[in-house]
Amino acid sequence: MQRAGFVAARHEVESESEEETMRCVSCQDEYDADEAGTCKECYEEANETEEELKREIEDLKAKVAFLRFWSPLDHHSNHRSCGPCFTDVVLVASSDEPTAGPPVPVPAHKAILASRSPVFKAMLENEMEESRSGTIKIGDVSYDALRAFVNYLYNAEACLDEQMACDLLVLAEKYQVKHLKSYCEKLLVSKLNWENSIIGYAFAHQHNAKTLLDAALSTITDNMDKLTKREEYVELVEKDPRLVVEIYEAYLSKQVNTAAHKDSPVKP
Amino acid sequence: MQRAGFVAARHEVESESEEETMRCVSCQDEYDADEAGTCKECYEEANETEEELKREIEDLKAKVAFLRFWSPLDHHSNHRSCGPCFTDVVLVASSDEPTAGPPVPVPAHKAILASRSPVFKAMLENEMEESRSGTIKIGDVSYDALRAFVNYLYNAEACLDEQMACDLLVLAEKYQVKHLKSYCEKLLVSKLNWENSIIGYAFAHQHNAKTLLDAALSTITDNMDKLTKREEYVELVEKDPRLVVEIYEAYLSKQVNTAAHKDSPVKP
Repeated sequence: MQRAGFVAARHEVESESEEETMRCVSCQDEYDADEAGTCKECYEEANETEEELKREIEDLKAKVAFLRFWSPLDHHSNHRSCGPCFTDVVLVASSDEPTAGPPVPVPAHKAILASRSPVFKAMLENEMEESRSGTIKIGDVSYDALRAFVNYLYNAEACLDEQMACDLLVLAEKYQVKHLKSYCEKLLVSKLNWENSIIGYAFAHQHNAKTLLDAALSTITDNMDKLTKREEYVELVEKDPRLVVEIYEAYLSKQVNTAAHKDSPVKP
Repeated sequence: MQRAGFVAARHEVESESEEETMRCVSCQDEYDADEAGTCKECYEEANETEEELKREIEDLKAKVAFLRFWSPLDHHSNHRSCGPCFTDVVLVASSDEPTAGPPVPVPAHKAILASRSPVFKAMLENEMEESRSGTIKIGDVSYDALRAFVNYLYNAEACLDEQMACDLLVLAEKYQVKHLKSYCEKLLVSKLNWENSIIGYAFAHQHNAKTLLDAALSTITDNMDKLTKREEYVELVEKDPRLVVEIYEAYLSKQVNTAAHKDSPVKP
């Protein structure tokens, strides 16, 4: 009988002023015409849509769980020990840094590597050195990054800090693992700020990371007044002036666009 | 200026009657207190939630696409021919039905089979006959069903009609591939009707398909007046009377529950 009470209350309000109120079925607050959202039918439809989307998410999560592969590295997973694992290839991190001993090989399956990376695929199918020897050397990478990289190829999961995201982005670009690359770019974009934008911009350029590049450029061109004072800027002019030219071009193009939006002529 | 028009229109209506109207931001129809849904704030929040859910779905779909494995059978897929594929085992359908020639082997990877099915895992890791010979015989199955089964283990996709759903459910139960089993059950539940409910019920019982079993039982107990006249019923009494007992028990329990809901005593 809350309903009858509500109707009565509404009439009271009406008699006091012209304001009309209705009660929101979601937050239960009263609202007037200014704050009107949807009618009940649309609300119920939206609710159904939300339920459907949630069901779809559950289905997709189950699918991901099914398709996820236990990695031969993954000894602490829920899966029981994978026993012999049937691995047929190892990856070895060959870093220039001096290490404590010989590199620890990372076991894997040729079929998985070839399925996830067109570069591994070509390497393994074409009976190159790597395929014959069963050993793939990965240059300029730490053991931890290599391990995380291989793990991602099996289960699409990685625990990323900024350093690991950079390391994995480099590997993802080199071995053309698009899904991992975009995962790393997302993390790096979320960590972008004025302090790291020039370094991020140069890094993105070097490793062909379009999303990160655009985000870094946008941060830089929002702070042009401070740009030339930064040490990284001076270094970049020295090292790769073409990248600096691209910053100015982006800034110019942004100014032109802003001006066009304002229907006013471009300022010199 | 539609807004001003709306307010004016609203006042006109008011002067004619006590009815108040607001305009739904979704369908653009006017509504009154009876049909009130949400306020604008809740509507906007719900909209954001929907957008977030859709983004999550996109992310999950990309993950599924990444984790999906091209099957060695999958010559018509978008992936380029998988070349040698590095398969290390074959599956062979051994059916009692006379066939035109020797069975066609279905190539696969031990690592994939072991990852998807605990039964294959035990079989392959324990150096049983199958592991040594590199051939796994699958009994009582057509080549097409075996092919579809192996394919599903690689990419979680299958094109199901009722017959294929039954065939794959049997394999999924035998090799404990839960995700496939629940996929087949969903299809079979959606095709359930009074005509096929008794056969569906017996089939679900035989292959331990709980969801299908419950759905079939519910269809049967909704039609108890017609049950004993059906040929399948007579056959089931003959072949497996315990299953018939379970139907009656389910019916009785439903009656008790219904009675309890109505707060009235159970009719004899």
